[in-house]
Amino acid sequence: MAPGKKGILERLNAGEVVIGDGGFVFALEKRGYVKAGPWTPEAAHTHPEAVRQLHREFLRAGSNVMQTFTFYASDDKLENRGQSLKITGAQVNEAACDLAREVANEGDALVAGGVSQTPSYLSCKSETEVKAIFKKQLDVFMKKNVDFMIAEYFEHVEEAEWAVQVLKASGKPVAACMCIGPEGDMHGVSTGECAVRLVKAGAEIVGINCHFDPMTCVKAVKMMKDAVEKAGLKAHYMVQPLAFHTPDCNCQGFIDLPEFPFGLEPRILTRWDMHRYAREAYNVGIRFIGGCCGFEPYHIRAVAEELATERGIMPAASEKHGMWGAGLEMHTKPWVRARARRDYWEKLQPASGRPQCPSMSTPEGWGVTKGHADLLQHKEATSTQEMKHVVDLQKKAKS
Amino acid sequence: MAPGKKGILERLNAGEVVIGDGGFVFALEKRGYVKAGPWTPEAAHTHPEAVRQLHREFLRAGSNVMQTFTFYASDDKLENRGQSLKITGAQVNEAACDLAREVANEGDALVAGGVSQTPSYLSCKSETEVKAIFKKQLDVFMKKNVDFMIAEYFEHVEEAEWAVQVLKASGKPVAACMCIGPEGDMHGVSTGECAVRLVKAGAEIVGINCHFDPMTCVKAVKMMKDAVEKAGLKAHYMVQPLAFHTPDCNCQGFIDLPEFPFGLEPRILTRWDMHRYAREAYNVGIRFIGGCCGFEPYHIRAVAEELATERGIMPAASEKHGMWGAGLEMHTKPWVRARARRDYWEKLQPASGRPQCPSMSTPEGWGVTKGHADLLQHKEATSTQEMKHVVDLQKKAKS
Amino acid sequence: MAPGKKGILERLNAGEVVIGDGGFVFALEKRGYVKAGPWTPEAAHTHPEAVRQLHREFLRAGSNVMQTFTFYASDDKLENRGQSLKITGAQVNEAACDLAREVANEGDALVAGGVSQTPSYLSCKSETEVKAIFKKQLDVFMKKNVDFMIAEYFEHVEEAEWAVQVLKASGKPVAACMCIGPEGDMHGVSTGECAVRLVKAGAEIVGINCHFDPMTCVKAVKMMKDAVEKAGLKAHYMVQPLAFHTPDCNCQGFIDLPEFPFGLEPRILTRWDMHRYAREAYNVGIRFIGGCCGFEPYHIRAVAEELATERGIMPAASEKHGMWGAGLEMHTKPWVRARARRDYWEKLQPASGRPQCPSMSTPEGWGVTKGHADLLQHKEATSTQEMKHVVDLQKKAKS
Amino acid sequence: MAPGKKGILERLNAGEVVIGDGGFVFALEKRGYVKAGPWTPEAAHTHPEAVRQLHREFLRAGSNVMQTFTFYASDDKLENRGQSLKITGAQVNEAACDLAREVANEGDALVAGGVSQTPSYLSCKSETEVKAIFKKQLDVFMKKNVDFMIAEYFEHVEEAEWAVQVLKASGKPVAACMCIGPEGDMHGVSTGECAVRLVKAGAEIVGINCHFDPMTCVKAVKMMKDAVEKAGLKAHYMVQPLAFHTPDCNCQGFIDLPEFPFGLEPRILTRWDMHRYAREAYNVGIRFIGGCCGFEPYHIRAVAEELATERGIMPAASEKHGMWGAGLEMHTKPWVRARARRDYWEKLQPASGRPQCPSMSTPEGWGVTKGHADLLQHKEATSTQEMKHVVDLQKKAKS
Repeated sequence: MAPGKKGILERLNAGEVVIGDGGFVFALEKRGYVKAGPWTPEAAHTHPEAVRQLHREFLRAGSNVMQTFTFYASDDKLENRGQSLKITGAQVNEAACDLAREVANEGDALVAGGVSQTPSYLSCKSETEVKAIFKKQLDVFMKKNVDFMIAEYFEHVEEAEWAVQVLKASGKPVAACMCIGPEGDMHGVSTGECAVRLVKAGAEIVGINCHFDPMTCVKAVKMMKDAVEKAGLKAHYMVQPLAFHTPDCNCQGFIDLPEFPFGLEPRILTRWDMHRYAREAYNVGIRFIGGCCGFEPYHIRAVAEELATERGIMPAASEKHGMWGAGLEMHTKPWVRARARRDYWEKLQPASGRPQCPSMSTPEGWGVTKGHADLLQHKEATSTQEMKHVVDLQKKAKS
Repeated sequence: MAPGKKGILERLNAGEVVIGDGGFVFALEKRGYVKAGPWTPEAAHTHPEAVRQLHREFLRAGSNVMQTFTFYASDDKLENRGQSLKITGAQVNEAACDLAREVANEGDALVAGGVSQTPSYLSCKSETEVKAIFKKQLDVFMKKNVDFMIAEYFEHVEEAEWAVQVLKASGKPVAACMCIGPEGDMHGVSTGECAVRLVKAGAEIVGINCHFDPMTCVKAVKMMKDAVEKAGLKAHYMVQPLAFHTPDCNCQGFIDLPEFPFGLEPRILTRWDMHRYAREAYNVGIRFIGGCCGFEPYHIRAVAEELATERGIMPAASEKHGMWGAGLEMHTKPWVRARARRDYWEKLQPASGRPQCPSMSTPEGWGVTKGHADLLQHKEATSTQEMKHVVDLQKKAKS
Repeated sequence: MAPGKKGILERLNAGEVVIGDGGFVFALEKRGYVKAGPWTPEAAHTHPEAVRQLHREFLRAGSNVMQTFTFYASDDKLENRGQSLKITGAQVNEAACDLAREVANEGDALVAGGVSQTPSYLSCKSETEVKAIFKKQLDVFMKKNVDFMIAEYFEHVEEAEWAVQVLKASGKPVAACMCIGPEGDMHGVSTGECAVRLVKAGAEIVGINCHFDPMTCVKAVKMMKDAVEKAGLKAHYMVQPLAFHTPDCNCQGFIDLPEFPFGLEPRILTRWDMHRYAREAYNVGIRFIGGCCGFEPYHIRAVAEELATERGIMPAASEKHGMWGAGLEMHTKPWVRARARRDYWEKLQPASGRPQCPSMSTPEGWGVTKGHADLLQHKEATSTQEMKHVVDLQKKAKS
Repeated sequence: MAPGKKGILERLNAGEVVIGDGGFVFALEKRGYVKAGPWTPEAAHTHPEAVRQLHREFLRAGSNVMQTFTFYASDDKLENRGQSLKITGAQVNEAACDLAREVANEGDALVAGGVSQTPSYLSCKSETEVKAIFKKQLDVFMKKNVDFMIAEYFEHVEEAEWAVQVLKASGKPVAACMCIGPEGDMHGVSTGECAVRLVKAGAEIVGINCHFDPMTCVKAVKMMKDAVEKAGLKAHYMVQPLAFHTPDCNCQGFIDLPEFPFGLEPRILTRWDMHRYAREAYNVGIRFIGGCCGFEPYHIRAVAEELATERGIMPAASEKHGMWGAGLEMHTKPWVRARARRDYWEKLQPASGRPQCPSMSTPEGWGVTKGHADLLQHKEATSTQEMKHVVDLQKKAKS
């Protein structure tokens, strides 16, 4: 941490609002540096300029946390996703730490090292094996001296607890996020109970990231907060949701939507949706407020603008943004100038321009999770025969 | 032009497909470097790293043309949009040329200097005055030795002709794009007639950019092609549409939609929509195929992938993209692996996840254009009183 | 005609608004007396009480015309639709005339005998054969002394001309309606030209019925009016559209929509849609304004209420209807009472309550018509083998 | 009861499926005999032919119960709704009993006398006063010797208990329906508890009618069944839902939707929706299955057809209906013949044809009920001043 910067817990203990960044894999997929499907972060090593630029945009938008671009950067995942370890997890993690630190130093931001769920857990490897994977990643983060750790994107609280236990040993503050909604984790543990277990495992900050839209995630974190308080425990709360509307999701979240991941465009939130999200998250007592897949820098800026009074600061990027559409006061057409007011944008129900498309989808509902044979992971790409098997299973599931 | 590179006309004369880039003002607004409303490109001068990175992403996605980020970069516009000429048009244009050239040199791309419609024309300034503005910009482009010129985003063919006449004098190849649809320009000149007049004015390439969705733009360029051929003339054709669905637009295009510009998210095209667009554009005989507002690098990549056989080359960014969802073969969940097929994505009708939002909007329909008092431009931001006047006019227009 | 009643031409010549009734086959299908598919009117003979009641409801709603329930009541159609002539066309036509007359006598309504397109024409029978079918029906209408004749629901103007020629010989006033839209008849004759030919064949009243929604039909009748006037001819105009929204139809109309005929519910027009329709029809100069498939009595009442001032009379059924929702002034809940105003209902954009359903469908587009082998009619129900052939054709048409 | 007919409890005890009828006030409003707002049934007295015809259509569609058209036919309601008792409640009730009996005798149907919630209860009259109103109605039903009684459309279980207690004294079997959903009654009593209290009050049959769509009502009756069984009690179950989709309703049901009551058309269920409803109702153990507002005879026919095997009988009206679209085998166009199969209609997601309309609405949410001053009922129509007050309240509720 740069001298003079306050740590994450100092900030939260002081009641400050900490603004997170957005998800890197989706943003960089659109920019051409991440492959959808594997979703692995080799670009931290191969295309640092692209990763650095995205960090800068989030910093400029108001982020106080530069999360290392290390999602799925464990060796078991990299191997599983067909890249044959030409680039190792360690290489990716090191490069990602350097980029995050470089940009964090350009402003008032901390560096958070990140670990996430592993294919090893899904494939029923032992606690010892899974923990070893987290430890290997943690070694890099300690060497690079990140400011705190985030264990995020866990569908099973058991694996998240293992991660927290490993990270906790480092002495760094630990945040832990499940990627679940109000219905609980994939083994049926309630959302509140997940939070209680994570706090007991040592996490100082608990919350939700990914898989659901902002309002759903806020609702789920509220359930966490209620359960933690009811259990007589104490924690800080964070939320880093999707920037996609997902009212039609079941417990598995947006993965199960037919549009995932290449047809989600019409679900992207507007900046005004983000204002509502930031306010609601603040109102229920969440103080670490960021984003995940689908967030672009302007989404984070909207969060920062909504909470500008509470934070006492406007983000740098607001020099290029009039609040509530004020920039339109200078538009060529008078009828567009008439949109330069809060009331207009708060009431707008935006059309999709897609008359043949419905409002909501019917998500898949396979209901299988860790322990089911169809979920054992392997490093080869799906064979034609396996694909046929899957399509057949799907037809059966639908009929 | 780098030695060994073929010029724009050489390529088009040889029947090659030339892929354009996407619109910079919308992309950089989301990244925090352009202000919506004024939409001016000072960032070329103030934040070159952000502009350079976007150029690189389009290059990597397959673009053969790096268009200088000089939209609305005339002094009359910069002044009109409240920035008081702290940064001059010349400064912006020079910086933009340097950035475009730097990245073009990294691949097989040409640099196109760009000019667009002026507030002076809208405010009824004389032909001499308007042409002087284009000339001033052209001087920079000649000094920086761009490879060819694009006059784009003209709502009135008369002003576009003036621009072409000025640019033509440079000896560089000239492309000219109207931002109109099948209903013609704002003075009622038919789309076909616009094209004929632009060819007669000296444009070697004519077409459409912005304001409408891809299929509408392709339809309009087809009308141009038919009219030019019917007139016994010869030209090449280009199209650089929005990446927003706009079936509900009237003749003024997406400006008049209630969602413009801060609620357009649900209208964003998917990559699969882009495949259809690229194929249709190719089929009607358009060979310069790019994008405008709303295009992100992955949209251009989809165009390049659709036409990979015709071009004989895949874009660099396709190393991070499986054709037709093939990257999903390596996804964790089997039901997502089942989406790794063309048939799935071609048939998908994506949901908006917004049950309270309609499919189509009712656009404004003021029907005023150049010559109407309400459209005279001034450099001061709209006053409270003017805003009240506009909102009143609007209520009247709707009742 | 009852003594003292004015005939149809007297009324129209005097500039009066004549209100038609709604379509009987759809309304009686919902009530259980007509079979969807064949759509034949045997119920006039077998269930007179149900047909009489529907006549009464339309009379009470404001209809000035009781159209005999004789749609598809020609022997060739009855035979073709599998009922083996246990009940003859003559029996049906006679019963229908009696019912229409009985109810017409209860108010200020005329009786119109109706003929419609024949399977014989579609199966390429000769002019003589087809005309003989119309003549056989006309004989009944003359015996029963109807007040005037309507030839309606013709997809090909040639057959409509034949019908008009036959009916004209009776000396009764003749109205003729095509079931086409603005794109013209199934042989490519323009909508305007169809009208000109029908007037030349002897029709005093021409227009459109069925197949398209009210606004589309009004637009098409306007084209007819323009063409007739341009040709220096004179006629009265009528329109009897669907009560279903059909913005997505191609030239064949609602038959080609995937929802036809058992999934059209979400397209049903509200009474407020009917107000707009009645006003628009009146404004373009149509004076015989009624309905077809989908119309229920309250739809006709809405037409009569919209034109109450012009007609100088409110329909009887308006004793059970407050204008513009006024009946809600007596509702239990205050927030429902707040809907008792015109402004509320005019602005309402009603939701479908169907989040998985789109706004618009993609209609079939086979593009075959009379003369194509697949359209030759036979009296046997489709065999399993024929059905397989059709489904195969359909798959091919879609791919 | 006609000699030889089995009573309602005999049928239900034997495990038979009993099919109810549809709601009369909405159906007759569309036909011109009931006024929306007051929703009172004077037509039983003034237009018996219209009421008789509707009874016949439901009988023909498969109904085993002719419910007397006596909704809101208590003197306090008739007076409150502005008709000044020119026609008394007794006159309406008597006429309605005669009509129901006449048609019931034409087939295998029973006559059920009906009472519903009273404005007196809403206006905080005493138990004695409210019970006197039910008693007065019951006297007519006993005189006319109906086969059993239905107390339906109660928003408060307390009033429903009072009704059941009064009716029970007659010795007739008593059914009791709340018009609530899964969230319970307007005083916050849970749906299950409502059922338990009604059974304890003496109802042999309990269930839900009106206010919500079929699937929601079935879900609510399932909650009732579970609670009754858990309480160690025994009952039969009935459901008579709306024929409108209402996924967006809050606890007050469709009254609070902005579309109520004059813009509900796009929500109307198709016959295929009814098949799903009938099957689901049967599967959860409901054996008295009917309909309420929005049901037309063909909706009841669809219920009867879905359960034809279980009941061992097809309804009379099915002579005019091919199962699963089979009637289309005789359609003129081959592509419509291709729709003559179950698979086609089960999968169809019907379009609304309304591109400017959303899928779901935001219901009013006033949250006031019996005891609140704004709900005290009076017989005068709302005054202009009261209306202003209501619209103001509404604006406040929305902001």
